[in-house]
Amino acid sequence: MAKELKDLTKRSDNYSQWYNDLVVKADLAEQSAVRGCMVIKPYGYAIWEKMQHELDRMFKETGHQNAYFPLLIPKSFLSREADHVEGFAKECAVVTHYRLKNAEDGSGVVVDPAARLEEELIIRPTSETIIWNTYRNWIHSYRDLPILINQWANVMRWEMRTRMFLRTAEFLWQEGHTAHATEEEAWAEARRMLDVYADFAENYMAVPVIKGVKSANERFAGALETLCIEAMMQDGKALQAGTSHFLGQNFAKAFDVTYVNKDNQPEYVWATSWGVSTRLMGALIMTHSDDNGLVLPPRLAPIQVVIIPIYKNDEQRSQIAEAVDPIVKELRQLGISVKFDDADNKRPGFKFADYELKGVPVRLAIGCRDIENGTVEVMRRDTLEKHQAPLQGIAQYCKDLLEDIQANIFKKALDHREELTRKVDTYEEFKQEIEKGGFILAHWDGTPETEERIKEETKATIRCIPFGGDETPGVCMVTGRPSARRVIFARNY
Amino acid sequence: MAKELKDLTKRSDNYSQWYNDLVVKADLAEQSAVRGCMVIKPYGYAIWEKMQHELDRMFKETGHQNAYFPLLIPKSFLSREADHVEGFAKECAVVTHYRLKNAEDGSGVVVDPAARLEEELIIRPTSETIIWNTYRNWIHSYRDLPILINQWANVMRWEMRTRMFLRTAEFLWQEGHTAHATEEEAWAEARRMLDVYADFAENYMAVPVIKGVKSANERFAGALETLCIEAMMQDGKALQAGTSHFLGQNFAKAFDVTYVNKDNQPEYVWATSWGVSTRLMGALIMTHSDDNGLVLPPRLAPIQVVIIPIYKNDEQRSQIAEAVDPIVKELRQLGISVKFDDADNKRPGFKFADYELKGVPVRLAIGCRDIENGTVEVMRRDTLEKHQAPLQGIAQYCKDLLEDIQANIFKKALDHREELTRKVDTYEEFKQEIEKGGFILAHWDGTPETEERIKEETKATIRCIPFGGDETPGVCMVTGRPSARRVIFARNY
Repeated sequence: MAKELKDLTKRSDNYSQWYNDLVVKADLAEQSAVRGCMVIKPYGYAIWEKMQHELDRMFKETGHQNAYFPLLIPKSFLSREADHVEGFAKECAVVTHYRLKNAEDGSGVVVDPAARLEEELIIRPTSETIIWNTYRNWIHSYRDLPILINQWANVMRWEMRTRMFLRTAEFLWQEGHTAHATEEEAWAEARRMLDVYADFAENYMAVPVIKGVKSANERFAGALETLCIEAMMQDGKALQAGTSHFLGQNFAKAFDVTYVNKDNQPEYVWATSWGVSTRLMGALIMTHSDDNGLVLPPRLAPIQVVIIPIYKNDEQRSQIAEAVDPIVKELRQLGISVKFDDADNKRPGFKFADYELKGVPVRLAIGCRDIENGTVEVMRRDTLEKHQAPLQGIAQYCKDLLEDIQANIFKKALDHREELTRKVDTYEEFKQEIEKGGFILAHWDGTPETEERIKEETKATIRCIPFGGDETPGVCMVTGRPSARRVIFARNY
Repeated sequence: MAKELKDLTKRSDNYSQWYNDLVVKADLAEQSAVRGCMVIKPYGYAIWEKMQHELDRMFKETGHQNAYFPLLIPKSFLSREADHVEGFAKECAVVTHYRLKNAEDGSGVVVDPAARLEEELIIRPTSETIIWNTYRNWIHSYRDLPILINQWANVMRWEMRTRMFLRTAEFLWQEGHTAHATEEEAWAEARRMLDVYADFAENYMAVPVIKGVKSANERFAGALETLCIEAMMQDGKALQAGTSHFLGQNFAKAFDVTYVNKDNQPEYVWATSWGVSTRLMGALIMTHSDDNGLVLPPRLAPIQVVIIPIYKNDEQRSQIAEAVDPIVKELRQLGISVKFDDADNKRPGFKFADYELKGVPVRLAIGCRDIENGTVEVMRRDTLEKHQAPLQGIAQYCKDLLEDIQANIFKKALDHREELTRKVDTYEEFKQEIEKGGFILAHWDGTPETEERIKEETKATIRCIPFGGDETPGVCMVTGRPSARRVIFARNY
């Protein structure tokens, strides 16, 4: 049984299959009856809730408030912003009717043709249009600015090829939408939220990220600039983990949102939007997990410490329960979520395998002999190392160990990224290197055409023009034209 | 300006208009560009978040976990349960296409006829069908039961007449969906969650509720029994604040969900579902608020105490700020959310009116003279009474006062309900009394036909057959047939 539980495809055999297996076997999510839509199962949702909790706190600490805007958007709103409609019209779910009726042949229900909407509604793929249509009535004077609003919501993009968490037709996310009096303020906001995302990714998810700006090809439809955080997965592919857009006055102009400035002159409002989604779950899984299952960063693990009793009879079982009780209490006092799994219908070996699969960071196994000796067996999930530790002070010991694990998996991911990041100077070398995966720092002439050609020939895109790093100018590896600096190329999820 | 802010319709002039005014003027919500869908503004959403927070804690304390199921439901799923489809097919949003394209005349985007779905999808009006279709694969043995899951989600019902919070096409809610091995267990669950809702309504919202069971006419489409909590609004109309359904084996049979029991025999699974929604916001507003604006129960108020400085110049302003600083800290240490509003661009009178409108439970106003005297002016929102209190120990004083307000508004609502609840024995008297509003306890013969007749003739429905209370049998006021006990009639929202 324990073996069966862990019957995961190995990463080295088929990384993609390993990911799909893991999502299902660790009870994170499963495919639903609706094409491209997943069911997020309780264990997966518990991780997402922890992410939401920390992000929500960070948003509020930076002055944002939550609100809620409608799920449905009038079709005509999409057309107001030229780039936006190009980007989103091709993949949206369209509501055309508002009623079903019984089929005349008794076969079930059919769409009632009499209940056709005058104007079709689309399920939001993102909410800039409906929100900026609303902001028009909220903003009159510079005194009404800034507006700093976030929304937790579901959105839908009718993707043709879907993968659980990474790319699903419906997904859960947050979308921040802010309005500002000046260009500078809007830029500062876009930059600030990118920093919040990077802070969250690195310090909670333990996922190292590179901050930068997207090339024009990869920009959000309707943005003047898209900032992003990019992470590297274990297979060397890139994953865009969050984006923050400087929208300029595009949506203000499209929805006629102006304010009267201090000199009593009307001006268009400046905007940003920024979002992260359940895609972060994919990033979390693919950064840390191994052939035994999930490896969760302690700060986002629903269960941080599991305690498993090893006993032969009821007497031993209750003796252990008695010894464990104060440990559980002490762990909880330290703010650690702990589970004492004394279920009698599963053997310890099964439990060990199950909690490894689920990525619980620390496992304590305790038998009567341990109690006599004043020790406990400790297993850390990140390295799978086992050792004995004294029962005395075990709660604080676990707390320190959790911090150590959090730091260790971040470092491991960072080392891996650095190992797989290298500079390349010729296009020939680039074509060889890109096959090996990882991030390639190369010179590029700054044109969409060259990027497009590289993408067609190598399937690699520019992940971002990083902030900082090596800013030495050079020449484009493809065209030989001048390049302002090296940018990051990779294949990506 | 202060006057304009409070320019609410009076309840006595037009209760319905007063409600609509208040929702908008207190910045809770507004109509959106999409028919029947509202925008929940930050202040309204902050109250909803506090409700969510408490309910979520209560659900978890009773053993439930959160999960997430798809927004869209295949049309055919609805037809599987006969009553369910009757109840929901007539008012659902139907997705028929998954793509838009540019109109040939350049006028914008149109539905792409080539992108028609093979089977239409509906936006969930409730999720029993998609969830029970999922549970089929999760449940095999009695060991897999119970399943205790809750979902926080948006749902859509294409209502023809909408009112903000009370009845909107899209609304936010939670829906619990549980699966059990036995009828007894499922019943106990339905009953337990009704108690959770009543606890929340009375102890957090300060809204007294009557627990009971619905008559067949008012039952959820697909349920064997619907339990409910019913509240009375200030105008004497009833509002159903939450429902908990015993679904029997209806959905298990419709979606073929069986488990193998301890005797190795297959059995259908037993089900419950239960939900509360943003409708609770309507109940909250209409139970406590007055002609000056919102009155919020302290336990759900985003700001519990507001402190307003009264000053003539910058020197006084900073002197007051210095004196207030330790009070703010002490209040926060007591877990009280406090706002010190020293904004210089609004006069105290404006601020007073604004925080009254927003329902902040306690207002402290403090000037230099107060500091010298060691006093502060305290205003409690529920009674609008002002008095002086010593600055010394003011934080604890506020804490006690908040508890007193919480208890007082509950008692006021309870007294009001009791005043407007009376027994009636003849149908003639009933017709007169129902015009005056309130709850009427009357005998009914237990048939849908009689209830339907009463509804047609008086617009009153049976709100519930209450648990407990006067259980003396009698005769139906309409038909003279035997009645098991008095039930509660009212007109309702």
